[in-house]
Amino acid sequence: MSDDFGAMSVTAYRRLAGRFRRWSALREAAFLLQWDSEVMMPAGGASARSEQNAALELAGHGLLAAPEIDDLLTAAEADRTGLDNWENANLAEMRRLQIHATALDADLVAALSKASSACTDAWHRVKVSGSFTDLRPVFAEVVHLNRLAAQAKAEEFGCLPFEALMDQWEPGARIAEIDHLFDDYAAFAPDFIAEVKEHQAHQAPAITTAGPFDRDRQKALGERIMAGLGFDFRHGRLDTSLHPFSTETPSDVRITTGYQDDDFLLTSLPGILHETGHALYEQNLPHAWRLQPVGRSRGMSLHESQSLLIENQLYRHPAFCRYLSPLANQTFPGHEAAFEPANIHRLLTRINPSARRFEADEVTYPLHVILRYRLERALIDGQLTVADLPGAWNDGIRDLLGVEVRHDGEGCLQDIHWYTVYWGYFPCYAVGAMIAAQLFDAASRALPDLEQAIAVGDFTGLRSWLTQHIHSEGASRPMAEMLRDASDQALNPAFFRRHLRRQYLST
Amino acid sequence: MSDDFGAMSVTAYRRLAGRFRRWSALREAAFLLQWDSEVMMPAGGASARSEQNAALELAGHGLLAAPEIDDLLTAAEADRTGLDNWENANLAEMRRLQIHATALDADLVAALSKASSACTDAWHRVKVSGSFTDLRPVFAEVVHLNRLAAQAKAEEFGCLPFEALMDQWEPGARIAEIDHLFDDYAAFAPDFIAEVKEHQAHQAPAITTAGPFDRDRQKALGERIMAGLGFDFRHGRLDTSLHPFSTETPSDVRITTGYQDDDFLLTSLPGILHETGHALYEQNLPHAWRLQPVGRSRGMSLHESQSLLIENQLYRHPAFCRYLSPLANQTFPGHEAAFEPANIHRLLTRINPSARRFEADEVTYPLHVILRYRLERALIDGQLTVADLPGAWNDGIRDLLGVEVRHDGEGCLQDIHWYTVYWGYFPCYAVGAMIAAQLFDAASRALPDLEQAIAVGDFTGLRSWLTQHIHSEGASRPMAEMLRDASDQALNPAFFRRHLRRQYLST
Repeated sequence: MSDDFGAMSVTAYRRLAGRFRRWSALREAAFLLQWDSEVMMPAGGASARSEQNAALELAGHGLLAAPEIDDLLTAAEADRTGLDNWENANLAEMRRLQIHATALDADLVAALSKASSACTDAWHRVKVSGSFTDLRPVFAEVVHLNRLAAQAKAEEFGCLPFEALMDQWEPGARIAEIDHLFDDYAAFAPDFIAEVKEHQAHQAPAITTAGPFDRDRQKALGERIMAGLGFDFRHGRLDTSLHPFSTETPSDVRITTGYQDDDFLLTSLPGILHETGHALYEQNLPHAWRLQPVGRSRGMSLHESQSLLIENQLYRHPAFCRYLSPLANQTFPGHEAAFEPANIHRLLTRINPSARRFEADEVTYPLHVILRYRLERALIDGQLTVADLPGAWNDGIRDLLGVEVRHDGEGCLQDIHWYTVYWGYFPCYAVGAMIAAQLFDAASRALPDLEQAIAVGDFTGLRSWLTQHIHSEGASRPMAEMLRDASDQALNPAFFRRHLRRQYLST
Repeated sequence: MSDDFGAMSVTAYRRLAGRFRRWSALREAAFLLQWDSEVMMPAGGASARSEQNAALELAGHGLLAAPEIDDLLTAAEADRTGLDNWENANLAEMRRLQIHATALDADLVAALSKASSACTDAWHRVKVSGSFTDLRPVFAEVVHLNRLAAQAKAEEFGCLPFEALMDQWEPGARIAEIDHLFDDYAAFAPDFIAEVKEHQAHQAPAITTAGPFDRDRQKALGERIMAGLGFDFRHGRLDTSLHPFSTETPSDVRITTGYQDDDFLLTSLPGILHETGHALYEQNLPHAWRLQPVGRSRGMSLHESQSLLIENQLYRHPAFCRYLSPLANQTFPGHEAAFEPANIHRLLTRINPSARRFEADEVTYPLHVILRYRLERALIDGQLTVADLPGAWNDGIRDLLGVEVRHDGEGCLQDIHWYTVYWGYFPCYAVGAMIAAQLFDAASRALPDLEQAIAVGDFTGLRSWLTQHIHSEGASRPMAEMLRDASDQALNPAFFRRHLRRQYLST
């Protein structure tokens, strides 16, 4: 009997794998279209592109929401004896994706899609110079519908409503843990920021230079560093867009950055390094599980940890500045004083509390995230009304950062996330920064020569360590387990604090 | 009763329009992916891209082949009184597409897809240096399955098997008419070619120049001419690929060409002009019918006519050479003798019978098409065995062009069409050339100042005439009807012959 069940289960699993393969391929196609929209598409293609995106999403949703999938999942889950660990993890991920796809009834899906589109359009119209009041009605509808969606998904998953939204990006994320991490940082940051400001006020000011720095040369320098980090150009490319981003398409990872003529150390290069971190994760995911849910990254916190490890732990490391200095001089002769390793490090670690997340440094960035996390939870839990959002935002920025918000464009209108579909995403950015610090610490212990290797541009040890402990695991195990195995302990915000003290106070 | 039926019919039509809108958006997404594969994709992305293409095709096929679509079509067709002419034409196109999607049983679809993929892969391996023998078994399977497909579709459409294959590209194409056109040309060409060779032997040889011509400048020159022709860069762009092509995506038409350092008059520029002809058709299709079948072009013969009209009727026109001459001198100073208008015309009208279609001039090109058409019909009708194809090909090239084929790479392996899914496509190229000549003649009569306008680079009259008579009609009427209304007569190969005599013998 068990044997029969096992055979049935394996057959069901095989059919599911075929369906999810198609679903994943459609998801990759959607990533490519999104990349194209930002990099290649002429402006007049936007409305047709929206139709293409919507059609792709419907096609993908149709695959996951077909009643047959539920039947196959139930059959496969009935007896897992025929499946190995990876197949079991794959099955669990399939079920999680299927629940996200089917938890909402068709009317709610349609209403959410319509309201989100209208809100995104409205946001694009008002984001720069408008006021939040201009999109309050349409945004209120979006909040209302996301609250319903959060409740519906929470019932299916047996978790809190906001946790169900976070689960879309970070499987199994729990409010209690996020609160623990974020409260810790919010308590630490104000005194630390004051201390860093005081410390930097007593330092010689960093020598600045305004170039001009030819953009093609900036790009060539970036590509050279990407290649050194192990980015595989047979399976990816670097292009230009307004804001840096990367695609979750392991066989062909498109990353972008933006260029300015008067700088590359604080603009194009950190963008390239950050996205290269994402790309290394994608390119080194387990090849045998391509286009299966278990072959994807283990959530967006871990994904952000990979980008932030490369951008903040590595790129801003004094040893990396020693590696970068001669490269910068070769690429752009005539700026030798500014390109001294110590000066590069000073440029890359200046602290500058700002109302804008995009301008934030490594120290203040998590505070931006913490504010957003608290506000979006309050919106979903009904503790905060839409009308009160701008005031709560501005108060929060003042409390956490000591900065005044002058208008909604640099306040609650600055990020697209809530005005489109990225509800529950924000925590990943700050959790990722903490994971990055903990992983880099573990890698440094495992690789005693890491600092010397970085200083000469040899990143093979670090890349191999990350691939072994993170990338190659795909989504086969919970993130917490992977982190514990890699670093010998659970996620601990002390690593990030210690990193910041070392980086900003040299202690 | 009729009123009730009318209302039901209108409701069914509306639902169909929604489904076909999604289907068309997926088709546009597929075009974008194809463009990306040729223009942007790193080599390592190929196999993932195949999966994406297959998933998109399945999603599109699923939409068309759903039983509900047949029911809705039947309901809408039951009483057309509530529908206007365009809606009726749209309904007819929907049915045609639905028959193509459903005429084959699932086993045949799967077998065809598998065999075509295998054959395309095999072709890519052997095309340059291999022998046809290397892919005979897999190609034989492709021919066999396409024969079955042709028969199944022919039964549904009530036409001959090969006509059913042509219908995929040229709706309603009939063998009797194609034979009439092609037999006419095959009879005309040999004596004409001999006459042109004799004529050109007595002319002063064209002055050639080998540049070098900077590729960015070639591109800028091409873009300037594109803009003059009315290409809308808000809704399209020009990029680089090995072979020129364009996408059927009216809101965002991507066209490409290839560049060589030693020439632009015979390489990058005709590529750009050809694809701009396609693009003008797409960009000027009726906006109100975007993403509906009736809003698409009226078949690939007419599409090729638009590209060939721009490439051959316009670009190779003596008046265009007068317009191009100063532009070429401004862009690439130092080649004044070669860029004399009369010399440019001489360069653009050299005749050169070759075994390769890609190298063919305007006169010999249709002969390449005629041979392929005759051979592919014979393969589908069972008159020619796969084993006999290379010999029949080489005999045909000798008979029609007086040229010897040295190996299969420049023989029956040179085109990808049969080794993938383009069965029944070839006739469109030559029929398009004939339509182009007839339309240009009609435009010249309607626009008495056309030649003077061309000489000064004013293409607005020609473009408006084409938009009015062809582009704006979408697929609302049969091509033959559109051609008759535009030119006052049915398709007549005499126009093409007359054009060639004028162009190549100045008679």
